[in-house]
Amino acid sequence: MKKKMKIIIVGATGTMGKHLSSAFEQEHEVVRAASEGGDIQVDITSTESIEKMFKQVGAFDALICTAGPTFVGPWKKLNDNEFRKGIEGKLMGQINLVLIGQHYINPKGSFSLITGALTHEPQLNFANASAANGAVEGFVRAAAIELENSIRINAVSPTVIENSPQYFDFFPGDIPVTMKQLEYGFRKSIFGANTGQIIKPH
Amino acid sequence: MKKKMKIIIVGATGTMGKHLSSAFEQEHEVVRAASEGGDIQVDITSTESIEKMFKQVGAFDALICTAGPTFVGPWKKLNDNEFRKGIEGKLMGQINLVLIGQHYINPKGSFSLITGALTHEPQLNFANASAANGAVEGFVRAAAIELENSIRINAVSPTVIENSPQYFDFFPGDIPVTMKQLEYGFRKSIFGANTGQIIKPH
Repeated sequence: MKKKMKIIIVGATGTMGKHLSSAFEQEHEVVRAASEGGDIQVDITSTESIEKMFKQVGAFDALICTAGPTFVGPWKKLNDNEFRKGIEGKLMGQINLVLIGQHYINPKGSFSLITGALTHEPQLNFANASAANGAVEGFVRAAAIELENSIRINAVSPTVIENSPQYFDFFPGDIPVTMKQLEYGFRKSIFGANTGQIIKPH
Repeated sequence: MKKKMKIIIVGATGTMGKHLSSAFEQEHEVVRAASEGGDIQVDITSTESIEKMFKQVGAFDALICTAGPTFVGPWKKLNDNEFRKGIEGKLMGQINLVLIGQHYINPKGSFSLITGALTHEPQLNFANASAANGAVEGFVRAAAIELENSIRINAVSPTVIENSPQYFDFFPGDIPVTMKQLEYGFRKSIFGANTGQIIKPH
């Protein structure tokens, strides 16, 4: 019989988080974390807020993060200040979830972060996301050889997702990833045995 | 006849920078930039300092960066605070050199940043560098499709370098890259026509 897991989903009120929460709560205990709403509030740009969340939730088996704010906009507007949106959000936000969360996660637990095809397939207006993704992917590979107690870490890297048609024009030629494909990517990360992998759900 | 270029080398007083400065000044005008010493001082963690450097140097044809401070040390010591060393140094430092330098570089000029094999081949103690490298590489690919006036951008990604034997034990099995190989990597970036490439000089 499959073990019932306690799964924290950070970004649970977003497009991806909602689908994953509904999918995984069929068989597992899901803790919905989000900046607003959900079961528990967390600001991933604050280490204090992250620490507080883990203290409140207690021991858990898996953490999914689908929250990754970055600056989207014209290259000409991109400066140090705008770049910080992705640095503090998708990059340090996710890395701090792991650096802090490793002290609360159960042995054999897993972290599943979110990156995206932009790491290797850039698109105009998304340089901040390409950089944040690249950092998270490099970190995932490095953390995989450092984490103890058989704790695993992977990233799921979709192209544009089907539920975000407002982005389709920015990703010419990209076949949108379905919510089901995305879910399968996270299933591979959480219920499989791999670590340090960048999982493409397409 | 090959055009004489004005080449800024950031990190010119370091191991790599010294070799590259000596090599390129045979045929080009080299401006040695460093945190201390050199022809001009620059603190790449400060946008004001970067802006000031470009104002003083004026128009140029190529910028090489070999400066990339990151946190090296045990995973257990790695927290948000230590992680910032690579975020502000190797990551934002290099990205800001490009975001600001694009307004001073001549048409057809080039940026050549430094990353490293750790992006895809992690080693214990170097998670901060893996993340910083990954970010810079993602940024290089994205910037390549954004930069105007035929300005190019690449990264050179060596393994451990021969002049840094103090690091050999951290990179088991890595054949050290010679200074000459490293130089050839930068030659490919500066004098070739490629853009958005991660050049492995080994």
